[in-house]
Amino acid sequence: MKQQYPSRLLSDAVEAISSLPGVGERSALRLALHLLSQPKENVHHFADAIRKLSDEALYCSDCRMISDGERCAICSDASRDHRTICVVESVRDVMSIEATGQYRGVYHVLGGIISPIGGVGPSELTIKELVGRLSALESGENQAELILALSGDVEGETTSFYIYRQVCGLGVKVTTLARGLGFGADLEYADSLTLGRSLLNRQIFKP
Amino acid sequence: MKQQYPSRLLSDAVEAISSLPGVGERSALRLALHLLSQPKENVHHFADAIRKLSDEALYCSDCRMISDGERCAICSDASRDHRTICVVESVRDVMSIEATGQYRGVYHVLGGIISPIGGVGPSELTIKELVGRLSALESGENQAELILALSGDVEGETTSFYIYRQVCGLGVKVTTLARGLGFGADLEYADSLTLGRSLLNRQIFKP
Repeated sequence: MKQQYPSRLLSDAVEAISSLPGVGERSALRLALHLLSQPKENVHHFADAIRKLSDEALYCSDCRMISDGERCAICSDASRDHRTICVVESVRDVMSIEATGQYRGVYHVLGGIISPIGGVGPSELTIKELVGRLSALESGENQAELILALSGDVEGETTSFYIYRQVCGLGVKVTTLARGLGFGADLEYADSLTLGRSLLNRQIFKP
Repeated sequence: MKQQYPSRLLSDAVEAISSLPGVGERSALRLALHLLSQPKENVHHFADAIRKLSDEALYCSDCRMISDGERCAICSDASRDHRTICVVESVRDVMSIEATGQYRGVYHVLGGIISPIGGVGPSELTIKELVGRLSALESGENQAELILALSGDVEGETTSFYIYRQVCGLGVKVTTLARGLGFGADLEYADSLTLGRSLLNRQIFKP
């Protein structure tokens, strides 16, 4: 049922808010009325933060991650290992890996994943830039490493394979994330694909 | 765990979006990155719709509902019964009642509900304006009616009672919404308060 709005301004705002992914018309109305009940300055601050993000955000010239300057904080950090590059789909994945505190290399953000259904081909992603970065790494005493940290679904596997084919001639060690049961995970709740693969790829027990 | 954002612009936008009710930091990040992936014009349109809502929305001089003009479409409609006023908490309730197609009177939007815990007293609501409207109604051939259509919780009941005390001397018929089991509702899933009250307030069966 199409809702009738008492005000054009309200229906415009609801339409704009409900264009966000996962926000229906009912939630959008709730949010619009919340914003309407707030002081004007708060709403201005809200709208400006979003506008500025879109207008002023830069992408790191090295890793293509969103950044306030020309190079992001990670790529500018000389203490990090610039010969280990972790390929991820989006900035969210960078944040997830950074949160582990286990990684001291740098990143490369693809900006998506190869998806024939979604109409995303390799040329839409930053794969050419990645190959350029790897080619530019002088061969040092230790071999450079490319970690493919993409999702485990068909599209992620396809993208990993495509990147592997592009870089396999560059003398770079190509690795991927370990897959298996989660640490602390219950066998009972594991999906059968993961459980089966974990059995096939079983490892020597190190007590 | 506090997330580390690679960009100040991104963290500002996430902070703004997560100030919305029911939107956590993770969803806010997802929405911010979605907006970032959109063309700039779409994001400007989004931010402007919200800004305009806050800056330009008017409230109907009669019923205090959000409106594009000085009087809302309902109050300006001469075919509606202006001697029947339905008191609701917010514009959302107006939209719900309008969607039924069963009501031809006008509304009065309180803009909230009396809530000692929420710090909302009668003076924050448009109760004084309501009393003014009722006093201004000339005594016509048929008695004016005030329908209290507030929620059935303690705060709604308190507000209904407060309004009743304010208007009971004005010669207006005061009614409230029928309460009981929903039409088509299953006894099994009814809460016991509603079921108990429906039994006490049972009505003559009209086949």
